[in-house]
Amino acid sequence: MSLKRTLLATAIAGLGLLPLSSVANEKVDLIITDAMVLTMNQDKTVYENGTVIVDGNKIVAVGDSSLAKQYSSDTVLDVDGDIVMPGLINTHTHVSMTVFRSLADDVPDRLHRYIFPLEAKLVSRDMVRIGANLGNVEMVKGGVTTYADMYYFEDEVAKTVDKIGMRAVLGETVIKFPVADAANAEEGIQYALNFIEQYKDHSRITPAFAPHAPYTNTTETLQKIAKLSLEKDVPVMIHLAESHREQEKIAERSDGLSPVKYMDSIGALNKNLVGAHMILVDDEDIELVKKSQMGVAHNMSANIKSAKGVSPALKMYDQDVRIGLGTDGPMSGNTLSTIDEFNQVAKVHKLVNQDRAAMPPIKVIDMATMGAAKALHMEDKVGSLEVGKLADIIVIDTKAPNMVPVYNPYSALVYSANSANVRHTIVDGKILMKDRNMLTVDEDAIRKEALEFTKVVRSTVIESGEVVQ
Amino acid sequence: MSLKRTLLATAIAGLGLLPLSSVANEKVDLIITDAMVLTMNQDKTVYENGTVIVDGNKIVAVGDSSLAKQYSSDTVLDVDGDIVMPGLINTHTHVSMTVFRSLADDVPDRLHRYIFPLEAKLVSRDMVRIGANLGNVEMVKGGVTTYADMYYFEDEVAKTVDKIGMRAVLGETVIKFPVADAANAEEGIQYALNFIEQYKDHSRITPAFAPHAPYTNTTETLQKIAKLSLEKDVPVMIHLAESHREQEKIAERSDGLSPVKYMDSIGALNKNLVGAHMILVDDEDIELVKKSQMGVAHNMSANIKSAKGVSPALKMYDQDVRIGLGTDGPMSGNTLSTIDEFNQVAKVHKLVNQDRAAMPPIKVIDMATMGAAKALHMEDKVGSLEVGKLADIIVIDTKAPNMVPVYNPYSALVYSANSANVRHTIVDGKILMKDRNMLTVDEDAIRKEALEFTKVVRSTVIESGEVVQ
Repeated sequence: MSLKRTLLATAIAGLGLLPLSSVANEKVDLIITDAMVLTMNQDKTVYENGTVIVDGNKIVAVGDSSLAKQYSSDTVLDVDGDIVMPGLINTHTHVSMTVFRSLADDVPDRLHRYIFPLEAKLVSRDMVRIGANLGNVEMVKGGVTTYADMYYFEDEVAKTVDKIGMRAVLGETVIKFPVADAANAEEGIQYALNFIEQYKDHSRITPAFAPHAPYTNTTETLQKIAKLSLEKDVPVMIHLAESHREQEKIAERSDGLSPVKYMDSIGALNKNLVGAHMILVDDEDIELVKKSQMGVAHNMSANIKSAKGVSPALKMYDQDVRIGLGTDGPMSGNTLSTIDEFNQVAKVHKLVNQDRAAMPPIKVIDMATMGAAKALHMEDKVGSLEVGKLADIIVIDTKAPNMVPVYNPYSALVYSANSANVRHTIVDGKILMKDRNMLTVDEDAIRKEALEFTKVVRSTVIESGEVVQ
Repeated sequence: MSLKRTLLATAIAGLGLLPLSSVANEKVDLIITDAMVLTMNQDKTVYENGTVIVDGNKIVAVGDSSLAKQYSSDTVLDVDGDIVMPGLINTHTHVSMTVFRSLADDVPDRLHRYIFPLEAKLVSRDMVRIGANLGNVEMVKGGVTTYADMYYFEDEVAKTVDKIGMRAVLGETVIKFPVADAANAEEGIQYALNFIEQYKDHSRITPAFAPHAPYTNTTETLQKIAKLSLEKDVPVMIHLAESHREQEKIAERSDGLSPVKYMDSIGALNKNLVGAHMILVDDEDIELVKKSQMGVAHNMSANIKSAKGVSPALKMYDQDVRIGLGTDGPMSGNTLSTIDEFNQVAKVHKLVNQDRAAMPPIKVIDMATMGAAKALHMEDKVGSLEVGKLADIIVIDTKAPNMVPVYNPYSALVYSANSANVRHTIVDGKILMKDRNMLTVDEDAIRKEALEFTKVVRSTVIESGEVVQ
């Protein structure tokens, strides 16, 4: 496209119809100028007065201010010194659960005592769509351009992602007990296969299997999914090494193996896998994780909220494991932008390592961008601002008082920024949010529909006498 | 004032000049309606469809929707279901250090290796004013209505607080080595005394002493300040039981006493004291703290960032110690609204207690409001929405996607909110921020002046070859 346009411009100039100066300017779809560009490339190049050039859905150039002169565009975003960086990649969530957010947050054994029963009553196509719409808006406003989801009726989530214009890896849940969209694991696998068939060629959506966890599925199911995922070349997302309950159940099943070793022993630990949480992993587990090339989703905020512990994520990162940040679902995290994880990730790793130099900001930002892209095996497409990559770009306001001054952009992002500091969000070359206004969906209508659904939630929860607060 | 107005209205009605219906309406300065009111009173009363009535600088009524009909006002804030709560009280910061934010965040032994030398070169009246102006804006935008500050040239901070309209306890630093505004501790005490004399009758500013820490002052200085503070009836703010360095130095000086026991042994632990951090305290220390009626500032975010550890703040709270949240300074925290502490306070206490039910949201909110008021010995004036208290009130946006839905307002505030969710901030009955716009100061001018000063910082830091990043 760029080449064609250049040839056309040259041809027109040859006819004497345009002044020569415009020949030098290649016409592109979007130019971002006057930016502090954090490329997050291999060398972590920063352009203090930088430019990013986008054509179609791709980045065609990244560099300093001189670059801007070589291109022209009808859409120029002069960001006045703001930070421009790769879109955030949220490696683990359950987006539709926004409609349950702030319910019974601190109930012991909450998943089994509260969440599964709540879902049995309330999960439906409508609920999945309504919740996903709300969560998508929250993510775009918080600078998340790609997310990985595990839930039910993922074809409904897919429709919302398609509409808003985000990128996503969507995993259809497989679990051994009856759930809203399947009576058993086999039906879950069939649902997933149909979903995969439907979305396998979508440019922004990657369909996937999502076996809930090792202990909530049989060995046979996990093996079948591993085999199918390699055949279809789709990801498998799973909660792994998350809880003591899981650890005990798997040890019983496997003659004492850890969850990671068990998954390896049954042939389910491979490059298509993405394990969420990975708290209860030892050095041998990490060796297996690394060798398998599987991805890891690190969800600090949810893990400490549930008092489950702190994943050795820093150790994994330092050993080149494919690891990125995730928020977990909105009943767990409880927010969906990984910006609001940054502070906690940086600081809690310092605390547990008793070292204020541990987990410096640049590692946190790497885990939110390239690390997360690697965790989802998308590092060739997204995660950094480099020529040829898809144009998933965010702009962070450096005028908000909490962001003044910026001596070190990584420090400012990790220790000062919050999700509301995101000004613009671009996915696949398209501006989804500009100056905090959503351009592709009606935010008010989405919020109103979600609030309407909360009436159903309230009446169901109150009827059954379950905990609200 | 209210009584006078009622009498006047009755008198006028008696003359037949006004219709009778208006007689029922008492005219007040501000009415907040359609609010989810969290009073944070003793019973933690919540009005789901509530009203707050303000006249002059005081709250004259708090109740349900029926209350609104009894009053009239030229200023009615219909907040459309948003959360209305007491203004946040930040019990510990060094506001002027905003101009140094994001410098050398993770340098080991940072206070002595980096911050003290930096301050020796750059602290001045101008720096203090410029930094305080910026920090004040950040706090008002983040819902902080009262803060406690420890720094130099506190008379400059006082001028900025007076202008913006906030409430503050301002502690002039006393320290044994030469600093920008005093050559030694004695000069620091004299500076503080002059400052106290100048501001002792200010309605919103409480001047105070701020001996930096036990180990950076002599026993004689600490005793002299304790005595003077009781004579003048002003607070004493100090960094206490914060670091192992302090613990060792004090043990050397006192035949093995802990910092708290040492302060008690020299007669400096009393009801006027506010101790910041209080990480290294044992059960005996807590007993002394409780008995003394001193206040405690709990700065989770800064404490874990520096890997200093986690204060037993939950234990102190549960034992009725006067304890509230603080952010610490912007080189430490690095943000100044305690909203951005909530998540970390709730979750890190769960983590260290290995109990997801530990530190529930309502305790966090209590520590941000009434607890903080008690820590600063201001609980008769601020910290809750109750009749007769000063009208320090904030309104939190519940329409932002991260705040939807609100089944439990305490959960939503602690696990979902960020400082940008604050919509309106009212101090002393006056609206300082409305719909996120500052009404009493020029935010752009303040930011520009701060950015101008960063040039001085950059050149000084770079000249001296010190760490920037």
